[in-house]
Amino acid sequence: MTSKEKVILDCDPGHDDAISIILATLHEKVDIVGITTVGGNVSVEKTTKNALNICDLVGLNVPVAIGANRALTKPLSVAESIHGESGLDGPELPEEPTLNPIDQHAVDFIIEKLLESDGDIKLVPTGPLTNIALAMIKEPKIIPKISEIVLMGGGTFGNWTPAAEFNIWVDAEAAKVVYESGVPIRMFGLDVTHQALATKEVTKRLQTINNDVADFVVELLDFFIHTYKEVFDFDGGPVHDACTIAYLIDPSLFTFKHVHVDIETKGEFTYGMTCVDLLETTGKEPNVYFADALDVDRFWDLFDETLQKF
Amino acid sequence: MTSKEKVILDCDPGHDDAISIILATLHEKVDIVGITTVGGNVSVEKTTKNALNICDLVGLNVPVAIGANRALTKPLSVAESIHGESGLDGPELPEEPTLNPIDQHAVDFIIEKLLESDGDIKLVPTGPLTNIALAMIKEPKIIPKISEIVLMGGGTFGNWTPAAEFNIWVDAEAAKVVYESGVPIRMFGLDVTHQALATKEVTKRLQTINNDVADFVVELLDFFIHTYKEVFDFDGGPVHDACTIAYLIDPSLFTFKHVHVDIETKGEFTYGMTCVDLLETTGKEPNVYFADALDVDRFWDLFDETLQKF
Amino acid sequence: MTSKEKVILDCDPGHDDAISIILATLHEKVDIVGITTVGGNVSVEKTTKNALNICDLVGLNVPVAIGANRALTKPLSVAESIHGESGLDGPELPEEPTLNPIDQHAVDFIIEKLLESDGDIKLVPTGPLTNIALAMIKEPKIIPKISEIVLMGGGTFGNWTPAAEFNIWVDAEAAKVVYESGVPIRMFGLDVTHQALATKEVTKRLQTINNDVADFVVELLDFFIHTYKEVFDFDGGPVHDACTIAYLIDPSLFTFKHVHVDIETKGEFTYGMTCVDLLETTGKEPNVYFADALDVDRFWDLFDETLQKF
Amino acid sequence: MTSKEKVILDCDPGHDDAISIILATLHEKVDIVGITTVGGNVSVEKTTKNALNICDLVGLNVPVAIGANRALTKPLSVAESIHGESGLDGPELPEEPTLNPIDQHAVDFIIEKLLESDGDIKLVPTGPLTNIALAMIKEPKIIPKISEIVLMGGGTFGNWTPAAEFNIWVDAEAAKVVYESGVPIRMFGLDVTHQALATKEVTKRLQTINNDVADFVVELLDFFIHTYKEVFDFDGGPVHDACTIAYLIDPSLFTFKHVHVDIETKGEFTYGMTCVDLLETTGKEPNVYFADALDVDRFWDLFDETLQKF
Repeated sequence: MTSKEKVILDCDPGHDDAISIILATLHEKVDIVGITTVGGNVSVEKTTKNALNICDLVGLNVPVAIGANRALTKPLSVAESIHGESGLDGPELPEEPTLNPIDQHAVDFIIEKLLESDGDIKLVPTGPLTNIALAMIKEPKIIPKISEIVLMGGGTFGNWTPAAEFNIWVDAEAAKVVYESGVPIRMFGLDVTHQALATKEVTKRLQTINNDVADFVVELLDFFIHTYKEVFDFDGGPVHDACTIAYLIDPSLFTFKHVHVDIETKGEFTYGMTCVDLLETTGKEPNVYFADALDVDRFWDLFDETLQKF
Repeated sequence: MTSKEKVILDCDPGHDDAISIILATLHEKVDIVGITTVGGNVSVEKTTKNALNICDLVGLNVPVAIGANRALTKPLSVAESIHGESGLDGPELPEEPTLNPIDQHAVDFIIEKLLESDGDIKLVPTGPLTNIALAMIKEPKIIPKISEIVLMGGGTFGNWTPAAEFNIWVDAEAAKVVYESGVPIRMFGLDVTHQALATKEVTKRLQTINNDVADFVVELLDFFIHTYKEVFDFDGGPVHDACTIAYLIDPSLFTFKHVHVDIETKGEFTYGMTCVDLLETTGKEPNVYFADALDVDRFWDLFDETLQKF
Repeated sequence: MTSKEKVILDCDPGHDDAISIILATLHEKVDIVGITTVGGNVSVEKTTKNALNICDLVGLNVPVAIGANRALTKPLSVAESIHGESGLDGPELPEEPTLNPIDQHAVDFIIEKLLESDGDIKLVPTGPLTNIALAMIKEPKIIPKISEIVLMGGGTFGNWTPAAEFNIWVDAEAAKVVYESGVPIRMFGLDVTHQALATKEVTKRLQTINNDVADFVVELLDFFIHTYKEVFDFDGGPVHDACTIAYLIDPSLFTFKHVHVDIETKGEFTYGMTCVDLLETTGKEPNVYFADALDVDRFWDLFDETLQKF
Repeated sequence: MTSKEKVILDCDPGHDDAISIILATLHEKVDIVGITTVGGNVSVEKTTKNALNICDLVGLNVPVAIGANRALTKPLSVAESIHGESGLDGPELPEEPTLNPIDQHAVDFIIEKLLESDGDIKLVPTGPLTNIALAMIKEPKIIPKISEIVLMGGGTFGNWTPAAEFNIWVDAEAAKVVYESGVPIRMFGLDVTHQALATKEVTKRLQTINNDVADFVVELLDFFIHTYKEVFDFDGGPVHDACTIAYLIDPSLFTFKHVHVDIETKGEFTYGMTCVDLLETTGKEPNVYFADALDVDRFWDLFDETLQKF
């Protein structure tokens, strides 16, 4: 029997965040301690509403705590061109979720759960790293308590600027705090998440599952595939954030390089770049396990099997 | 009858912070809601201990809440060359203060007091602006509740680098958050605080007051005067932070220019500079009341009178 | 008998550059090897025409070589708000000067004259430092041949941005090259040039000289005084560049501090700042003699006497 | 009959620069107007000596002009770890070449040849872009005269830092000048030059050519292959610079994307990055033809055939 992975999902749903929550809920390997929301793809009001609606849909009842709605040093920037005005455009969602967020701020929820823990909680940020950075700044005692940070962000190239991926670009200062914290990091950047490309073949396969959640995921993917065609001329929509949950369920799906990563916060054209030292030119100690390859077939098998569990 | 000024003193004592607390305590015009500490001149452990010891000495019993011990995006830098290893070198202080800090984090104390208030609380930061920035990031609803920020920091020149004053240099990102928040700011930078120069004539005068607190202040000033001679070749020690309290007691001691101030966070040699637009070259709206002149004689009169109140 | 000062005037006339050329021409202490022009206050076409017209007016016949019309890393920015469209608005000047520039590029003229010299030539840049930097980059052998660089530029505060003076701001990269070259630098920045303030009392005095050149200078000053009132609300026009020539004639007019100066080229709000280490906080070796005070009365006496020599 | 390509080779030999000169000399399609040297892989003294030695070896008699030995804004950085102390470690080379450089500075040679030309000269920089930038700054009239700049430099990833390729990193300010000049640019960056990987199979094939120049090239490649194994753990040595000549001989070897490229000069970790806008996220007009793929087999065929021409 494999042990469960205790996680806090720190997210900004967002199509691929929504899929992450769903996979994490449906798979018995993952034990969701709580969900914390952050402004990113859309405002934190919308990402919180979206998270609650996903919980409703998939029957998840865990604390949902509202987090930051701006970056450490600047106002929030959002990605409505990718996720639509609601952050989850595509499927229809109730105007008012039946669940409510808890009263505690996301930052304090993260701090409290970590301090209470035996050091066995993994943080899974799939949006800007503002909440995680704030928690580390406010209460440095959490740092040795974090088992691992399993994040979606960055890459050796960008999707928001030529150098920067959206999550890191929204709050590069927060990313700097997290990457320099000393906590072990599993980094799922664009290099690998673009391999997790949901194509029309993928959605055709998922349609055969024939349950409400799988149908919902298909609707999300249809919208996402359409967006990625329009904006990036991709033949599919990468389910970026879902890589983090796939890793938690089956780490063998990915290969990693143990490398040093610096976060650029000063550049004129490179703000928010994750500088991944693949050729070991910096001479600095590795601080990140950088996912560089995905077993694509087994990834979609796992995806399919997990959705069938509903 | 003049109304009282409700303040939260956010500080890193530090000689001049200590003097600020003392003046604020002794003068009936100032109503201290609480003290929040921050790492700066020395670590937050030390600045908290120093704050508690000053409370003991001067008979102040208000909540003291411990705050951040690092800058938003980097570790703490301290100024032991100026304030000594304890942060209050000079006078003898008890190893263990009799008072205790409260259990609440400084950031949450600030947020709670502001949200509960009628918008009549002034924040008086005399250290790095980390706590204030964190409070604004965590709970933006406090922003319209802050009556005014009366701060010591910055100037048109620096004392820690050629361009930057220590408080702003320690956490320029936090300063950026605060200066861009829209809250009215009274800024007491080096341009004016260097006019508040405690010379040997000043200490001679204060010695004649002949009470425990005045004697303690003289001991602080003796150490500070010595340090400023050694490090900067000044003929006196500027009681930087005390300008904020002097202003609260008697605003007419100062003249101000209403100007735009930007915070430099990217520069190679200018990190932490407060770029004060005195010649109106930027075309930007004023965001700061910049203190440019002090009535020196009346300042020391007020200083003297206030210390006599003990 | 004092020895003459051999100089190359590298300039962008400009009202105060024009006055510099006039003073240098009229005073026997200064031996002008040549004039090199640079884009700055206006384009290099205009600054060259202005230089030639000044030569005509004052009877100076030396080589005038055209230099750079852009900064090292970016297009030219000009200051027509200060000097008018022609760069010398105010007095009437011929459309076509009778003199012609030489065929050699300013950079090559500077290199040739320095390499031929016994190391006794001083460079006197009163515009952006582009030509001087280009000469140093193209032919590093000139560096030990430069007796001294006597420049107008920079200061502890700015006039084009809150942090930067115009000449340095136009080409901070060039300034970086020059300040890091190891050549001895006499720096006349805004701190001292604002003391050389031509007021209406000054122009009244100069009007009594009653020769064509003095009358021309008065016309320049009238325009400049008007501009400085409009733009900066000053009660006079600072004859910035003339400080360099006054120093060459009588060094005792100024006091200097031997300090380290760094040039900021990366800052968001501080590009082009000369970071003058007056408080010796950097621990770096001095590379600049920074003029900090001017004997104002003797300055205007010298100014007056020199104009009478025409 | 195809028309010849008139080129100025601006280089810092360097193993792959040497191979470029050799290919350009041997192939009738290329007409070398002159060679200009620059400090880069090693000092300009060494790169000039190496260039002259290569001319000797291959029987090329064209003007060789010495260029810059530093970057625009900083001292030279060299790459002796890659090219050895001489810049051409491996084969034995005469201590004193029989040819001499011309008396004209590289920058002036470039300017003169371009101004004299009918706009049919291509510049082929395979080192830092200092000379080209200096020529553009000194004489902007050359800009419309340049037919094309065919350069080796940059890429979407780095080999000197995680973000920057060596040539651009040595003088990012010069690269900025060139990339912003408006001249059409063919850019051969690491993305494509790493495909031109000389393996042991390649050298085995070239050994069968059996002429002095081919043997020399094999010796260069043996050293380079060894270095790349040691430093980067590559199974071969990329003949970066040779891509430029291969393109001039047969453009159909490569595919290109017409994209916008910005040069990062401010970043903390990204100085010298070429930010290639492959996903069109910037909305800026294309300024570069970015080589993204190489027909590897036909490349080595061309390489082989050209070396046989000696």
